[in-house]
Amino acid sequence: MTRLFNDPATFTEDMLAGFLDANAQYVTGVPGGVVRAAETPSGKVAVVVGGGSGHYPAFCGVVGPGFADGAVVGNIFTSPSTQEAASVARAAHGDAGVLLITGNYAGDVMNFGLAVAQLQSEGIDARYLAVTDDIASASADDIAKRRGIAGDFTVFRCASAAAEEGRDIAGVESVARKSNDRTRTLGVAFDGCTMPGADRPLFTVDAGTMDLGLGIHGEPGVSSHMMPTAAELAELLVTGVLAEKPAGTGDRIAVILNGLGRTKYEELFVVWKTVAALLTEAGYTVVQPEVGELVTSLDMAGCSLTVMWLDDELERLWTSPADTPAYRKGRITTTEAKARAVVAAPAAATQIGQADADGKTAAHLVAKGISAIAAQMIAAEAELGRIDAVAGDGDHGRGMVKGTRAADTAAASALAQGGGTETVLTAAGDAWAAKAGGTSGVLWGAALAAAGRRLGNLGTPGDREVTAALRAGHDALTSLGGAQPGDKTMLDALAPFVSALSSAVESGTDWRTAWLTATEVAEKAAADTAELRPRVGRARPLAERSIGTPDAGAISLAMCIHTVADLIEEHTK
Amino acid sequence: MTRLFNDPATFTEDMLAGFLDANAQYVTGVPGGVVRAAETPSGKVAVVVGGGSGHYPAFCGVVGPGFADGAVVGNIFTSPSTQEAASVARAAHGDAGVLLITGNYAGDVMNFGLAVAQLQSEGIDARYLAVTDDIASASADDIAKRRGIAGDFTVFRCASAAAEEGRDIAGVESVARKSNDRTRTLGVAFDGCTMPGADRPLFTVDAGTMDLGLGIHGEPGVSSHMMPTAAELAELLVTGVLAEKPAGTGDRIAVILNGLGRTKYEELFVVWKTVAALLTEAGYTVVQPEVGELVTSLDMAGCSLTVMWLDDELERLWTSPADTPAYRKGRITTTEAKARAVVAAPAAATQIGQADADGKTAAHLVAKGISAIAAQMIAAEAELGRIDAVAGDGDHGRGMVKGTRAADTAAASALAQGGGTETVLTAAGDAWAAKAGGTSGVLWGAALAAAGRRLGNLGTPGDREVTAALRAGHDALTSLGGAQPGDKTMLDALAPFVSALSSAVESGTDWRTAWLTATEVAEKAAADTAELRPRVGRARPLAERSIGTPDAGAISLAMCIHTVADLIEEHTK
Repeated sequence: MTRLFNDPATFTEDMLAGFLDANAQYVTGVPGGVVRAAETPSGKVAVVVGGGSGHYPAFCGVVGPGFADGAVVGNIFTSPSTQEAASVARAAHGDAGVLLITGNYAGDVMNFGLAVAQLQSEGIDARYLAVTDDIASASADDIAKRRGIAGDFTVFRCASAAAEEGRDIAGVESVARKSNDRTRTLGVAFDGCTMPGADRPLFTVDAGTMDLGLGIHGEPGVSSHMMPTAAELAELLVTGVLAEKPAGTGDRIAVILNGLGRTKYEELFVVWKTVAALLTEAGYTVVQPEVGELVTSLDMAGCSLTVMWLDDELERLWTSPADTPAYRKGRITTTEAKARAVVAAPAAATQIGQADADGKTAAHLVAKGISAIAAQMIAAEAELGRIDAVAGDGDHGRGMVKGTRAADTAAASALAQGGGTETVLTAAGDAWAAKAGGTSGVLWGAALAAAGRRLGNLGTPGDREVTAALRAGHDALTSLGGAQPGDKTMLDALAPFVSALSSAVESGTDWRTAWLTATEVAEKAAADTAELRPRVGRARPLAERSIGTPDAGAISLAMCIHTVADLIEEHTK
Repeated sequence: MTRLFNDPATFTEDMLAGFLDANAQYVTGVPGGVVRAAETPSGKVAVVVGGGSGHYPAFCGVVGPGFADGAVVGNIFTSPSTQEAASVARAAHGDAGVLLITGNYAGDVMNFGLAVAQLQSEGIDARYLAVTDDIASASADDIAKRRGIAGDFTVFRCASAAAEEGRDIAGVESVARKSNDRTRTLGVAFDGCTMPGADRPLFTVDAGTMDLGLGIHGEPGVSSHMMPTAAELAELLVTGVLAEKPAGTGDRIAVILNGLGRTKYEELFVVWKTVAALLTEAGYTVVQPEVGELVTSLDMAGCSLTVMWLDDELERLWTSPADTPAYRKGRITTTEAKARAVVAAPAAATQIGQADADGKTAAHLVAKGISAIAAQMIAAEAELGRIDAVAGDGDHGRGMVKGTRAADTAAASALAQGGGTETVLTAAGDAWAAKAGGTSGVLWGAALAAAGRRLGNLGTPGDREVTAALRAGHDALTSLGGAQPGDKTMLDALAPFVSALSSAVESGTDWRTAWLTATEVAEKAAADTAELRPRVGRARPLAERSIGTPDAGAISLAMCIHTVADLIEEHTK
């Protein structure tokens, strides 16, 4: 929802004042909207775009060299008035005519149409075009009734670039019409936007569904669908738009994957991956695609796919330089750069140390343990995520799954290559750290590798070797992580475990039995972290909020210890 | 929430593949992240940034000339691994050393720190810096514990620009440290983001409140506040950041007002209006501010204010050219442009026609009617908005208020200048159209002006004049709007009203009595539009959904007619 405003009634004026201040090097305010800070040179046609606000960077964000000469700024989702359109056009006009372009909405068509008549009566060669790219808003037989959505952007851009090239008003108008004739958009929405000061969204989309063809002001779509995967959505959009290929067009296309406000860049790139593949598969060459927010609708969730079928002229215009507050394109730096050679992944070089038969047997058990831990982490992923979300970013479960899976694969591979305990544990630790990333990944990796180095590849580790290896892992973890006992980290489960196991072994218990007893100590200690305040790595206020919830890293460590205990019990039966 | 994904476990890989495809002219993928498409030239220091994903354009969106040489890409909100950081740094490195920069998070510090040690062991002069701009995350005595948020951007930028200038590794590192020492950020959050595949947000902020100092991964903030106005928020952020002015700094500053994902451009500009004023008031000169989404947090609602105190060197670097997928700056077009002279608003030129005494009396009543209508629209604003929201964008109430308020003011002014009925009605109509914008604004404006021209400024309008004026208004509206009866527009209330009033007058009833009878006809006709399907201006599927709800324009027209009827009754008592 739109949360930041002063008086909702002056939202547009306040917005415009802020926009003009922040972009003073590009734009100047005039009654009704904005024009470029620089004068329109003699002989250059002016292109003025516009419509209601709420679609930034459309419309005032694309005023500048290579793009629009002016933008008429209406209230949120409301056409500017005739007077406003005429005022901005008059200010933007040099001496070579002015083309006004808006999306095809009744209010815009009327107000800009009347403005054009007014300008013509003043002796200005004014023309008007309404963009009709939205294929969901009317049938192909009725293209003139279609509304304009993200295709506004391609049409504005090509017309503006033609004006920048020095075309006369008839030429600029003709480019705009051609660009509009060759542009098609299909969009979807997942959730509505809320107008400034409104107490509920302008419209809603049922949870778990999406509305195909929904307009950028909440005009209803053509059909409702279950929420698809990113790849399914890509296919739906590509199929829909390509089905409307205009007659006589070729295989080079400009493409926009446009986010409507709340569908973020990362999601758009995930969708783009499939869109790009499907377009290539269909025989198209995509020319300088745009993936981002170009025509938004406040904080609406949704996106749209726009294709403009190029010819040589449109391709030259689409790829020409532009320099505006929100859209910049073209050569900025002058250095000739040398293209990089393709970079290959460095080959993984596992050092397989010499292992004897006992060492291989021990390594086999270690690998089995890692495998069991990986399975356990998959089962516990959601629970660990929930615990971590109280005080952190909720990704601990996923990190443990990524890490232990990679460790499992690496351990199995090291084992298959004849590795002993050290080889298996260091390979597992390195893989864990590499794939899990994050804090716990690097710590687990360091601890496993240190323990492995202590155990070596030869013989069956005895009580002393096991306790020493655990101590080595513990020390690697503390020296790298810098945490102290009581800091509410995985150390708060590991340290009591290592102590309990070591004490038991020192008292003559074998390490397997000691492991079972120490497991209970670790589990209690992990649960007890709920009482602690974190002192490392996180913001201090977290200390207050996280009390009552244990540390996710301590809990997952105790789970891993418990999994090994189960294996020991099974093995000693 | 994050809605578009395939397998949540491969979200980052899918995102990265889409990003690389869409930005192939800028970047190339390498194990662990991305590097510039062009080779790092001999003698140039490489700057590698990074951290978890979910913050686009940070980090991979700012790789290119003038900015970073490479970006390490971790999973969502998770530090990349040591191996990944080392791999990207190795690929980005030319022969002059590499500076790695991340925000100050435990996982990043560990993994990038280990990567630097690894790189150094390979003979690469690698350095590391963790950005600590977030003033809410630790006290000023404990700056090294502060986390890095949007200030990442200023530090990355200055260090990268210094490398582009040809500084050696010690120089680049020193610029990065100076930039970090002089950068402060304070942020707020209004609502949490949802990780791909998660069934609930990572964190929540109570409705109607905001969390001051909340981190970009949901780390809790320092205090909770009632939701402020945009101006109050601006003051809170400016005061908070300026209170941390570093010692020995001057009055020129680089400023970022950063949106976290769901707080949109329009809202940011509204806030910026006040931020800019407050900074100026405090004696600062703002150098090329950035208002937009530079360091996001998936679809989190919130924003932050970053100030970097400049010296000559930092100002030169901050304003230098950059050309990356998501951030471009610098001279693109080569034409010398002439700055535009300040454009003044054209003076409103109301033509005050000659009115006689009766004409002035009639005009007084007309102005009173317009005043009453304006008051009625303020009362009905919310209701009209609700009706309009079913089938449109819910702004009809606001448009009617803006239009009738402007008409009221213009009518009063025309009256004060001695205007008669025509002058008052045309002034009111022009003002209505100019201030309301949209479809209904221009139609109401045209109808009032046409009616006024028919009535003239002289004498008391009689029955024939009133019916002729209403007919003229009706005709202006149909000829401009193009709607037919039954199209579910205001015409569906106006046409029956004009017919009923004309018939009654033709049968010998005086126009005042006829108005009262015709009012009922108009109200019934407006209510009956609930049964109609819209046929003009809106998408066809709307036809289905809007059945059962009357047309907001017809309802508001009937309200205006009713208001006049009340005045007639009052006047004839």
